[in-house]
Amino acid sequence: MIEPSTADAAPATSCCPQYHEAIELIGRRWTGAIIAVLLTREPLRFSDIAASVPDISDRLLSERVKELEHRGLVERRVDPGPPVRVRYALTPMGRDLAPAVGELHAWARRWLSCGPATP
Amino acid sequence: MIEPSTADAAPATSCCPQYHEAIELIGRRWTGAIIAVLLTREPLRFSDIAASVPDISDRLLSERVKELEHRGLVERRVDPGPPVRVRYALTPMGRDLAPAVGELHAWARRWLSCGPATP
Repeated sequence: MIEPSTADAAPATSCCPQYHEAIELIGRRWTGAIIAVLLTREPLRFSDIAASVPDISDRLLSERVKELEHRGLVERRVDPGPPVRVRYALTPMGRDLAPAVGELHAWARRWLSCGPATP
Repeated sequence: MIEPSTADAAPATSCCPQYHEAIELIGRRWTGAIIAVLLTREPLRFSDIAASVPDISDRLLSERVKELEHRGLVERRVDPGPPVRVRYALTPMGRDLAPAVGELHAWARRWLSCGPATP
């Protein structure tokens, strides 16, 4: 006897390509962490981001930040100084990831034994 | 003159290791797509997941599904049949990613020119 199954009725909803693109963008190694740090406070200097994202090399952090700039999520701000100061901030597109990052953070707290949220 | 800057006041909030773990888990190539497909309907057979996640090889899909099982997000259900039928479903831990996936999907729709949501 063949058991009725919703899985036989029709193909499952295909994964939306833009969601796929989004998750692969922010899920890239370190990228989600960089966005989360900038969501807590911005603008930040390169060295401040580096201090807040554990274990990332300066080379890789620079590469990821450039990618986020290129994709329109982060902007580089240059204050003429002196001293000249370069800082990084989220664009409206980047800042709009706050609800998704917040939900993922909440999930991690519920399921991966995260400590209480840092204020 | 040194411009006052919140970035100078204290280090930015460090990235929570569990959030980092979460984003790297679901952001792994194809993993977020597999979870999104199972959130739309489950349980699904391997071939149904494969049909809904574009361009993934069976070998890689199998590897990702095994990883999700190992991490406790997906469970493998064997109906004894005949015919024997193996299907995959989200665990409560996996299903609890729905709000995060929903927010990321909404962001992708707002910023990456996604079409209207499929019902």
